Amino acid sequence: MKEKREALVSIVMGSDSDLPIMKEAASILEEFNVPHELFLTSAHRSPERTSLFAGKAAGRGIKVIIVGAGMAAHLAGVIASQTPLPVIGVPLDSSASPLQGFDALLSTVQMPGGVPVAAMAIGKAGAKNAALMAVRILALDDKGLRRAVDGYIEKMAEDIEEKQQRL
Amino acid sequence: MKEKREALVSIVMGSDSDLPIMKEAASILEEFNVPHELFLTSAHRSPERTSLFAGKAAGRGIKVIIVGAGMAAHLAGVIASQTPLPVIGVPLDSSASPLQGFDALLSTVQMPGGVPVAAMAIGKAGAKNAALMAVRILALDDKGLRRAVDGYIEKMAEDIEEKQQRL
Amino acid sequence: MKEKREALVSIVMGSDSDLPIMKEAASILEEFNVPHELFLTSAHRSPERTSLFAGKAAGRGIKVIIVGAGMAAHLAGVIASQTPLPVIGVPLDSSASPLQGFDALLSTVQMPGGVPVAAMAIGKAGAKNAALMAVRILALDDKGLRRAVDGYIEKMAEDIEEKQQRL
Amino acid sequence: MKEKREALVSIVMGSDSDLPIMKEAASILEEFNVPHELFLTSAHRSPERTSLFAGKAAGRGIKVIIVGAGMAAHLAGVIASQTPLPVIGVPLDSSASPLQGFDALLSTVQMPGGVPVAAMAIGKAGAKNAALMAVRILALDDKGLRRAVDGYIEKMAEDIEEKQQRL
Amino acid sequence: MKEKREALVSIVMGSDSDLPIMKEAASILEEFNVPHELFLTSAHRSPERTSLFAGKAAGRGIKVIIVGAGMAAHLAGVIASQTPLPVIGVPLDSSASPLQGFDALLSTVQMPGGVPVAAMAIGKAGAKNAALMAVRILALDDKGLRRAVDGYIEKMAEDIEEKQQRL
Amino acid sequence: MKEKREALVSIVMGSDSDLPIMKEAASILEEFNVPHELFLTSAHRSPERTSLFAGKAAGRGIKVIIVGAGMAAHLAGVIASQTPLPVIGVPLDSSASPLQGFDALLSTVQMPGGVPVAAMAIGKAGAKNAALMAVRILALDDKGLRRAVDGYIEKMAEDIEEKQQRL
Amino acid sequence: MKEKREALVSIVMGSDSDLPIMKEAASILEEFNVPHELFLTSAHRSPERTSLFAGKAAGRGIKVIIVGAGMAAHLAGVIASQTPLPVIGVPLDSSASPLQGFDALLSTVQMPGGVPVAAMAIGKAGAKNAALMAVRILALDDKGLRRAVDGYIEKMAEDIEEKQQRL
Amino acid sequence: MKEKREALVSIVMGSDSDLPIMKEAASILEEFNVPHELFLTSAHRSPERTSLFAGKAAGRGIKVIIVGAGMAAHLAGVIASQTPLPVIGVPLDSSASPLQGFDALLSTVQMPGGVPVAAMAIGKAGAKNAALMAVRILALDDKGLRRAVDGYIEKMAEDIEEKQQRL
Repeated sequence: MKEKREALVSIVMGSDSDLPIMKEAASILEEFNVPHELFLTSAHRSPERTSLFAGKAAGRGIKVIIVGAGMAAHLAGVIASQTPLPVIGVPLDSSASPLQGFDALLSTVQMPGGVPVAAMAIGKAGAKNAALMAVRILALDDKGLRRAVDGYIEKMAEDIEEKQQRL
Repeated sequence: MKEKREALVSIVMGSDSDLPIMKEAASILEEFNVPHELFLTSAHRSPERTSLFAGKAAGRGIKVIIVGAGMAAHLAGVIASQTPLPVIGVPLDSSASPLQGFDALLSTVQMPGGVPVAAMAIGKAGAKNAALMAVRILALDDKGLRRAVDGYIEKMAEDIEEKQQRL
Repeated sequence: MKEKREALVSIVMGSDSDLPIMKEAASILEEFNVPHELFLTSAHRSPERTSLFAGKAAGRGIKVIIVGAGMAAHLAGVIASQTPLPVIGVPLDSSASPLQGFDALLSTVQMPGGVPVAAMAIGKAGAKNAALMAVRILALDDKGLRRAVDGYIEKMAEDIEEKQQRL
Repeated sequence: MKEKREALVSIVMGSDSDLPIMKEAASILEEFNVPHELFLTSAHRSPERTSLFAGKAAGRGIKVIIVGAGMAAHLAGVIASQTPLPVIGVPLDSSASPLQGFDALLSTVQMPGGVPVAAMAIGKAGAKNAALMAVRILALDDKGLRRAVDGYIEKMAEDIEEKQQRL
Repeated sequence: MKEKREALVSIVMGSDSDLPIMKEAASILEEFNVPHELFLTSAHRSPERTSLFAGKAAGRGIKVIIVGAGMAAHLAGVIASQTPLPVIGVPLDSSASPLQGFDALLSTVQMPGGVPVAAMAIGKAGAKNAALMAVRILALDDKGLRRAVDGYIEKMAEDIEEKQQRL
Repeated sequence: MKEKREALVSIVMGSDSDLPIMKEAASILEEFNVPHELFLTSAHRSPERTSLFAGKAAGRGIKVIIVGAGMAAHLAGVIASQTPLPVIGVPLDSSASPLQGFDALLSTVQMPGGVPVAAMAIGKAGAKNAALMAVRILALDDKGLRRAVDGYIEKMAEDIEEKQQRL
Repeated sequence: MKEKREALVSIVMGSDSDLPIMKEAASILEEFNVPHELFLTSAHRSPERTSLFAGKAAGRGIKVIIVGAGMAAHLAGVIASQTPLPVIGVPLDSSASPLQGFDALLSTVQMPGGVPVAAMAIGKAGAKNAALMAVRILALDDKGLRRAVDGYIEKMAEDIEEKQQRL
Repeated sequence: MKEKREALVSIVMGSDSDLPIMKEAASILEEFNVPHELFLTSAHRSPERTSLFAGKAAGRGIKVIIVGAGMAAHLAGVIASQTPLPVIGVPLDSSASPLQGFDALLSTVQMPGGVPVAAMAIGKAGAKNAALMAVRILALDDKGLRRAVDGYIEKMAEDIEEKQQRL
């Protein structure tokens, strides 16, 4: 638990080696001041822990679940099947697979009809965008957060104009 | 506009030939009684119309935008860059490309950091899940809809038990 | 349940539409007179049913579990994580995905270290070989079955010589 | 702006980190003495800036637009949709994606009918060829430039003969 | 030869079986009233004819060469190496290869630095866009054609608005 | 031969350069105290040695054969065709091929109907899981080993809980 | 055996269902009047028959072996490892695999150093070219055949000129 | 020219940067004492030089042509179209392309019917096997060389037995 306020977003990962990538998501949530938690569980190595987590997340006040996993990345789908919350999947380019996250991408995005997972890009860009997607979802019901999203979008455009100057 | 109540979800597609697939999303939204609209615009053939749509969607009361597109599927990304709303992308297996939606998948999911698109599976399963994801998002702030999601999840499990009997 | 004798092999599939392919496995097991059952459960649509099945399979006397699934095929991995039995995965070329079983192949075979799934070829050839692999495993402790495997291997070679005559 | 003479070719890129690759294009244009400019804008992070650029390029005297972008590379297509000028797309192997420019390639080349983008090879070879393609286009109406193209083609052949000597 | 006026664009193809696809290019050129020709030659089956064609095209008044080819599509590259004109390559999904034009795409687009080929999408969309790219190039020096391109772009946007009505 | 007790599992590899990866399998077998051997033979460079090995393995008391091979990985299939034992294939990401084990994966898993090979993930994860699959097979007839498998499964779940503490 | 004269080329295939494709090779050899035979054997289903064939081919006067196989196409490699003759591999797009011959292509072409297989294109084009490659090899020592190859090459070029007339 | 005796094999490459890989072929030819030459020419940068080379190779006494090329590797096909000699293609993993030789592989192997190229594996293994294939072809008419091939095959098998000792 990173924040005293109750977490609204849970960042789940299948292995502690995924932390350096998934911290990208945490860092965006901190920037938007969204309370969140980091949770470690594996679809395959700790299935019961995963089921317990998924089953209780909504009741604990979690609104959005972000899941990072590599290889045959089943974790996002397995969690999505046991919660009514929106689940965002980040395919990771695991050092244990030479397929560059391509296996994780297909395992995450090609969910059969009925159980949705919102897939992001492979790796850091995906982890960052997962948090931004969570923020956009939470902003639907939080005007302050919506203004922050609008500000973030404007800031990106301004950054480019500044960088043009320095080119 | 399919409903008299103000649409909460906009289903956008790049070509009217995408309608048979994207109707799958509309049909799920009807099942959950979520007011929605169908909107036709192309990232490439009607860029201004696309910008106008994206810029005004939030102000019109739209909460979630679902976008179906094929080939070099830029539409979801282009819309996501001009709205603070959550955008869900459905890669389509366009009859105009022999690459089986693989081009659309990568064009949809591999968004650079900063502008998130929630990618779904290619084709009908993705269109269906896009609507279910929209429903899960809207249910964060609508207890009736949350119960409907819970009911949908239970119903899927029951259907399988019934089908086992008939196997 | 297809046989009065207690099933030794369970053929699991995620959808009744997978039956025409997975029957290929049942038909091989019948040829070798191995008692088996057909079981319908989905990793995503009936996760509890899947956990119950996996948790009880070994206790019921099942020796080998064959699992067919398409798209983001998580079913074999999810079952393998909840049983000590050998699990054989058959990636299916689901009509709901245009990716020709390639998504199912990577989702099945790229299991992270710790939880093994024995992946077979995509589709019918894989379903057939899954059953033959189950028979080879059961034959380790059943001399009659071993002779049947040896006979099957010889028969394949003889068939080719016959077909040469007719070429 | 790299030249006092009005730029004929605009080299556009989505991120300043693309500069080391896109300089390859600038360097060829300098070799052919074609006035050009470097412009930074992103399809997703600065959509308005991109639209303004595309809408005004032809009026400013630009003849050819070269666009480098990585990942879900929408920039060339988005610009091509808002200008009547020929647009050349260079897919980049972005360090933010492990897919080796393959995502950028499909996002650039698989444009739907109606809005053409001329795709080049991934990375440096593509950036170089984009400039050479721009030169070939400009040479249609510039005899001096045509002679320079002919000279460039002859020089490549001579270089190989020299290298044979040193082999 | 399709027009009495001297052809400005040559549409080259490797096999007469490519004609149904490449006619898409001819039809666009007719729409824009650009004189063009159809030329049949193969990089592999008629290399001399190909060299003669490439060597003489510029002298005959041809301005842009469009080349359609399938499988290991070498034709566009081979022609580009023997002419200073801009060459546009259309990868074809040949019925003789099961790889869906993917082989032709990589063979067309991955040109080494020095000899540019402007690659289009696989198949009909690519053939259409090849012609539109040729028109954009020719319009650089032809105000009437430029107005026609502008009109074509506007027309595409209007068509979408009409189709929305009928949705 | 690594153990005085007769080997139950044979770990076969096509090249001594595969040893660092395949040792992962040996190390798991040691952990489970399963007697095993390391055997070097190539489908292509020593076909006779391979046939002799395959033909005699069952008679020597071997129960399961694990085969690691890279590139056009034929070794597992060739052995499986000459033994009635279960054969487990580990596709290797050979340094001699730039295709990241993808060639080895398809060569291992896409076995035609009749001769089964149980394919694992590419590389170390696959080598580890091959040994775990062998252990699960041997445990069908060895209660002590079954308890060890159950223990291994529990241990993986506990490890994750511990790692959560340290996160 | 198709010819009374001793066969110089052996066309080997793994299944009689490959005959319609491999006949393309036979038909070219007939056109060049090269005596040949059709031989049915499988790397996996008849390994002994395959070894016997490979071991005796050179002694029987065979000069070139053409091998067609699908899926994990091991047949060409297995034969090449047991003969000093040149072996030409034709990857087939087997109806038993949805991967469009891509699995067969990698299994055929990615041979490790030491045992060469000459890979052709997937399917009919490959079968035809396999025969043409065999003819080019035999023509090294047969002036009449060399003249026939020269004639074949000229004829291809003439055919294109004729087809141009009919375009 | 590496040998005073007239070269029988020509090793052609598109760039001097390919030399470190293609030397692998030269080194095998030296081992078998086959006179050979190294020739530098590019399909795209020196098309005339390439045509001259291809047109004269047979007349100069060359028997087999080995061609290494990367990216859109047209060189082997272009040469094969202008000579009746057997041409062996080695796809190279060019440092100028991030696609790991996959583009070169498809550009080399997917030759249309009529003009055969014998494709080898990507990179060093392919260069080595290209030379071994050339040797097998030359050995058809040279008993000493045939004995050397037989010896090479035996030696590979012996090496493995030795390496087993050291394992």
